[in-house]
Amino acid sequence: MSLVVVGSVAYDGVETPRGRVERMLGGSCTYFALAASYFTRVGIVAVVGDDFEPADVAFLESRGIDLAGLERAPGKTFFWSGVYSADMNDRTTLRTDLNVFADFQPKLPPHYRSQPYLLLGNIQPALQRAVRAQMNSPRLVGGDTMNYWINNTRAELMEALREWDLLLINDSEARQLSGQSNLRRAARSIFQMGPRMLVIKRGEHGAILFDGDDHFAAPGYLLEDVIDPTGAGDSFAGGFFGYLAERGHDAKELRRAVIYGSVLGSFCCEQFGVDRFRTLTRPEIDARFHEFKAFTEF
Amino acid sequence: MSLVVVGSVAYDGVETPRGRVERMLGGSCTYFALAASYFTRVGIVAVVGDDFEPADVAFLESRGIDLAGLERAPGKTFFWSGVYSADMNDRTTLRTDLNVFADFQPKLPPHYRSQPYLLLGNIQPALQRAVRAQMNSPRLVGGDTMNYWINNTRAELMEALREWDLLLINDSEARQLSGQSNLRRAARSIFQMGPRMLVIKRGEHGAILFDGDDHFAAPGYLLEDVIDPTGAGDSFAGGFFGYLAERGHDAKELRRAVIYGSVLGSFCCEQFGVDRFRTLTRPEIDARFHEFKAFTEF
Repeated sequence: MSLVVVGSVAYDGVETPRGRVERMLGGSCTYFALAASYFTRVGIVAVVGDDFEPADVAFLESRGIDLAGLERAPGKTFFWSGVYSADMNDRTTLRTDLNVFADFQPKLPPHYRSQPYLLLGNIQPALQRAVRAQMNSPRLVGGDTMNYWINNTRAELMEALREWDLLLINDSEARQLSGQSNLRRAARSIFQMGPRMLVIKRGEHGAILFDGDDHFAAPGYLLEDVIDPTGAGDSFAGGFFGYLAERGHDAKELRRAVIYGSVLGSFCCEQFGVDRFRTLTRPEIDARFHEFKAFTEF
Repeated sequence: MSLVVVGSVAYDGVETPRGRVERMLGGSCTYFALAASYFTRVGIVAVVGDDFEPADVAFLESRGIDLAGLERAPGKTFFWSGVYSADMNDRTTLRTDLNVFADFQPKLPPHYRSQPYLLLGNIQPALQRAVRAQMNSPRLVGGDTMNYWINNTRAELMEALREWDLLLINDSEARQLSGQSNLRRAARSIFQMGPRMLVIKRGEHGAILFDGDDHFAAPGYLLEDVIDPTGAGDSFAGGFFGYLAERGHDAKELRRAVIYGSVLGSFCCEQFGVDRFRTLTRPEIDARFHEFKAFTEF
């Protein structure tokens, strides 16, 4: 194993203009792990309830994912449901039942602690810190956050950020965290909080990597058909980090990792929930990476 | 001369979070011509009133722009004013006085008619057709349009589109024109209306070129400081078309033209109105083109 991922393993109910699923496997940690599993061996840190299906355990194991850090607690698994707008650029949350996630105290199995790569999903900054503290000396620590933590637990988030190498967020979160509407200025301001790399996820508009004074911009992949965007951002993060765990994180590989992240995010949208990962192969991923080359070269 | 541009030459009043200008040179045709003037000799087709300043004539002439097609009519020059939102992604029109533009009947000077490149600004489709009809057999005809014409003069617009090689519009216009929310499908639908190339301008998110079955996507340039976005889309179009008029429009040059368009659009935002074009030089343009290469390569 080389990458530890922390976040939610959940059941989701999703409605998009292309259909509706009442209950399916989801959660940031699930998407991280599935996307990263094409590049490296991943260990999950998360909690599920006693309703978690053996078929879902079997699916994650079939992708070579280490579930030693997947705690099983009495009660129900985290449940989220939402409905997407007609253009799928907005979504409304219908229900969030934290269930067993409410008392989640992440505990890392001993063999996780010496792993070189750590990806912290969008959970309470105090929990992100608790996980970070259990790792020996990871080579690269990245994390995600969101408006809720930026607004309500800012001091805690600042403590957490000090210990990260890389922050992965979207435009509006970068602007909110930094108080700067210009993204170059936002990046500089965020670098003073701790991270020395910033990846801005822009959905259909691609992604930007700020790496010290350097930056790299990639357009989004133009899908012919978007079925369900749930998990696309987390699949981006998983593909990005998984690729780095496979190849190291020098400047050149960081750029390629942004493309691999975009590739995984785009595949994720092609079916509901995690379904695309049931059939997706590494050759398909590499083929889409080369498509990126073809439609961006000039 | 090799490129004929048609559209408005206007005075604008603009307020952005970075300042306010009561009255300054503007109009789509002005931005087209200034941006294209770095690549090729441009001839303007437009109308101004008797209030049009000699200093503005002198500025356009100083860029080598042919003003033989700039008609002077009794009355006032087209005036537009607007105010931008805090993030400059939206603007509200405060005033539109068509003035002499209301009776504009474009007439091409004889030496314009044999030029190889024609760029039709966002004016009434019937006027766009009237200009097209006065040209002998241009090598490439491109045009812009907007929601207003798509909604209110759809039949006329369809007639115009049949005679164009290339359409330059933004995402929402492409979706509205085609009735397709997916951009790949929108492109295919628009190709059935006449054009065989489509350029989608996405502002800070870059641009996409659809060229038959091929496509090319470019991210936006990350400006450190946006002063006034007025005219950025028209500067993109002028830079794009000017570069094609200089270099021809094979598949490789079309991609480079998208980047040159983006470069000109980005420079335009660095000062109010057309002011950046008073000092901008071709070496600065080429340097930014190479910056694009540097921040998009992987």
